[in-house]
Amino acid sequence: MADASPKPASRRQFLYQLGAIGGAGAVLAGLEVLGMPMASAQTAPPALTGSGTGKRVVILGAGVGGLTAAYELSRLGYDCRVIEARSFAGGRCQTARAGFSLTELGGEAQHCAFDDGQYINHGPWRIPFNHQSTLHYTKEFGVPLEVMVNDNDASYVMFEGGSGPLAGKPVRKAHVAADMRGHTAELLAKAVRGGQLDLPLSAEDREMFVSYLVREGYLSSKDLSYSGADGRGYDLWPGALTDPGPGKLSAPLPMADVLHSKAWRTLRSVAGFTQQRTMFQPVGGMDRIAAGFAAKVGHMIQYGTVVERIGQGDGGVEVAWVDAAGQRGTTKADYCVCTIPLSVLRHIDAALPDGMKQAMAEVAYQPVGKIGLQMKRRFWEEDHYIYGGHVYTDNADIGSISLPSWNWQGAKGTVLGYYQFDAAAIKVSAMTPAERMEFATAFGQRVFPQYRENVEAAFSVAWHRVQYSMGGWAEWDDEGRRTAYPALCEPAGRIYLAGEHLSYLTGWQAGAIESAWLQIAKLHRQASA
Amino acid sequence: MADASPKPASRRQFLYQLGAIGGAGAVLAGLEVLGMPMASAQTAPPALTGSGTGKRVVILGAGVGGLTAAYELSRLGYDCRVIEARSFAGGRCQTARAGFSLTELGGEAQHCAFDDGQYINHGPWRIPFNHQSTLHYTKEFGVPLEVMVNDNDASYVMFEGGSGPLAGKPVRKAHVAADMRGHTAELLAKAVRGGQLDLPLSAEDREMFVSYLVREGYLSSKDLSYSGADGRGYDLWPGALTDPGPGKLSAPLPMADVLHSKAWRTLRSVAGFTQQRTMFQPVGGMDRIAAGFAAKVGHMIQYGTVVERIGQGDGGVEVAWVDAAGQRGTTKADYCVCTIPLSVLRHIDAALPDGMKQAMAEVAYQPVGKIGLQMKRRFWEEDHYIYGGHVYTDNADIGSISLPSWNWQGAKGTVLGYYQFDAAAIKVSAMTPAERMEFATAFGQRVFPQYRENVEAAFSVAWHRVQYSMGGWAEWDDEGRRTAYPALCEPAGRIYLAGEHLSYLTGWQAGAIESAWLQIAKLHRQASA
Repeated sequence: MADASPKPASRRQFLYQLGAIGGAGAVLAGLEVLGMPMASAQTAPPALTGSGTGKRVVILGAGVGGLTAAYELSRLGYDCRVIEARSFAGGRCQTARAGFSLTELGGEAQHCAFDDGQYINHGPWRIPFNHQSTLHYTKEFGVPLEVMVNDNDASYVMFEGGSGPLAGKPVRKAHVAADMRGHTAELLAKAVRGGQLDLPLSAEDREMFVSYLVREGYLSSKDLSYSGADGRGYDLWPGALTDPGPGKLSAPLPMADVLHSKAWRTLRSVAGFTQQRTMFQPVGGMDRIAAGFAAKVGHMIQYGTVVERIGQGDGGVEVAWVDAAGQRGTTKADYCVCTIPLSVLRHIDAALPDGMKQAMAEVAYQPVGKIGLQMKRRFWEEDHYIYGGHVYTDNADIGSISLPSWNWQGAKGTVLGYYQFDAAAIKVSAMTPAERMEFATAFGQRVFPQYRENVEAAFSVAWHRVQYSMGGWAEWDDEGRRTAYPALCEPAGRIYLAGEHLSYLTGWQAGAIESAWLQIAKLHRQASA
Repeated sequence: MADASPKPASRRQFLYQLGAIGGAGAVLAGLEVLGMPMASAQTAPPALTGSGTGKRVVILGAGVGGLTAAYELSRLGYDCRVIEARSFAGGRCQTARAGFSLTELGGEAQHCAFDDGQYINHGPWRIPFNHQSTLHYTKEFGVPLEVMVNDNDASYVMFEGGSGPLAGKPVRKAHVAADMRGHTAELLAKAVRGGQLDLPLSAEDREMFVSYLVREGYLSSKDLSYSGADGRGYDLWPGALTDPGPGKLSAPLPMADVLHSKAWRTLRSVAGFTQQRTMFQPVGGMDRIAAGFAAKVGHMIQYGTVVERIGQGDGGVEVAWVDAAGQRGTTKADYCVCTIPLSVLRHIDAALPDGMKQAMAEVAYQPVGKIGLQMKRRFWEEDHYIYGGHVYTDNADIGSISLPSWNWQGAKGTVLGYYQFDAAAIKVSAMTPAERMEFATAFGQRVFPQYRENVEAAFSVAWHRVQYSMGGWAEWDDEGRRTAYPALCEPAGRIYLAGEHLSYLTGWQAGAIESAWLQIAKLHRQASA
């Protein structure tokens, strides 16, 4: 934080100050001056001056957005009270480990029975480098990070929707990448050299372009043919043996087989913005971030308390609630920051204008399912040499299987057995926990022959069936972004909505944090006026 | 190890047994049976039966190869003595941290003055997943691993040898990857759809191929044009701002600019076999592997002792040495495993056949230079949002700059300031340590404006000037592999050569380990005969 650090004004501070004065446009201009094209106006909390002392803010929800608001506003002197329905802080930022329990709406209670040290991040589970807002707090709270392998060429792709000999079989992603791109490079390089293409390139540039294709696709520089690459792997790894000496390179798959398999759907020229190939995760579980906040603002949180009504008048806001013991009460404050998901908020009696209520009704919430499977041993490492990453499938009911990026070479490990959305998530969530475990196990067994014999415990979640969340995250369509979104970002009198749903990073903790940053800046401006 | 584990025969054990009986051919056949095409015959020590009790082995060199031989042979009952010239175990497996000193031949003494917790792995520094032999020992000795980010799209490429507006400027690798591949995909997709190419594909397959290009290259499915991708990044990151709402996507570079920059040389369809995008490193420094071995066999090592002569007769071997105090002595044994680098061994009087001496003379040793620079703060993370990976350059005197994959978000960090080979390494190594620091700093400053003001300590090595190593690793040419290599792998009477130089993984610890495994199996066979 600017005021906690004695060092001279950094680039970031310079940008925050620009942002505070001139908005995003000024920040962009500032970035140009610094020759730094990659940045956000929201890489740190807003640089607010003045004081909130003597003013009360009631914050609804102790998820990452609410915790951010409580932490930053209380540092400015505001008297903050957080009302949280759950018995713990973090909202959807949860980690299931021994002792954690969850009962979905209409479902049976699940008590996590993993061994000590095993866990699954069944809510948010990865942090890309560009989520500087999340990383701001891991640094602020000293939450140690480790790399989460988000893409692994050694892992399998298993696509059933294609045809040909690879359909429905686990194929190493390195084989798909090397062969699809290698065959393609060969085809193009030969066409370029053969003059088949009408190219906007000089003769010299054409040869340079061929050189690029040769290098990219591991082509023979002699005849531009693709015949495999060491990067796709070996049938026998090179080592110190003399027979065969340099190992035995694997042979490429025919182009038609890879094409028909449709496994090429996993290939992109560059990883997506939020899907970097290496991400971060807090050491020990994502809920360490919630714990970092709670260590600072936990004393402000009234747990197990459900909001029943949000009222406001000229003099302030009044929130009516009922606590875990069934006692009713109210909390009065000057302002309210409401981070309750819209999926829940729309069922609460709230003093919001009709336009906002209509806007809320337009937002969809994503059904999301996840299951953690504790395995007796790390057969994916020991037998398949896969260390982290995902097994991508085209089976919507499974989505992907993900292998843990921690406790490398350890005795046990917890695998994410499925990660599905939309209709598939609704379908699978209709199963009992035991049925889900069996469903995930049966599929995993088709990828890894060691799967079933090693599954020893499971913990699943269907976020759309989780009380106080009622969905994984908000989903906006273009029309909603144009109309409903700006309406909901505006303060309604003394009430400010915030959360991942009011960001362009829905489903990410960074969205919740940056939304809170935006709204508390507005609140502070109103309170200081 | 098989005999330490009560669990039923695993796939690996099955393969070792196959390998022990039938060699690599049998292993390959066995892999086919298991449907597992990716493996090595050397993923674990050879499964040796019988005992070496009562037999003495003198092992020359306590590098990773010698340590492997001492550990495995002593487990079989052999009485092992290790003679090591240095005052510590590990050979080139070194980590420079406070207290570490090095004086190159003809150079001044360097005493590492890094802060506590800072270090540079100036020898081996990364472990790919397919080096199962190295990973065998990290598991065996309980050496905790962490991910080493070996490729990072957010990092820079700086190529000076090209032309055009990008030449000599740091460019994000994501920009190079997205744009070179995106423009290429557009060009090819349009040609395919326009019927310009004579393709071995049916009409239906042609459209599927276009779909692949659309997905791979982030093309518009409407007109097959490439106009950027979120994976290449934003000028303004998306967050919770409403102006501009979804952030501001970055615009692609023109194809000609990327082509002329030659930065595409960093692109490959799939990462090379030993250059996986995520690798491993031991937590705390690579020398933790040496320490793991030393905890087991340290008592067998006679440190500070230089071999002067290696003799052998019908009755055994005799090694003459001189210790740090100048005392001369001899060690007698039944067998000798000599892991001394050939660059050093060829100057020692050794009872080896003339054919082996000639073979030794044919092997080149790679000149290699590295420098660690301790930085006051992690400006590459804080200001540039680059977390690990390398800055690739086409400047041979620098090679690459590498950013640390540990202590994320910490106060300080140690950067690898250069990593060069061949003539460039010889050139730079002629500088004094202070001159090397200045040389690395001046170059780094051109990539990161914060470089010079943050450099506070340096430690460099030129492996070709390091006594007892005299080079980074062995370099074989095709002719040498055909003739010299097999000759050196054969036992010379009672003497067995081993080390990274006698493997197809030269320069890697896995090569040293697997060479030792191969040779001790031969030794045991001879001793048991």
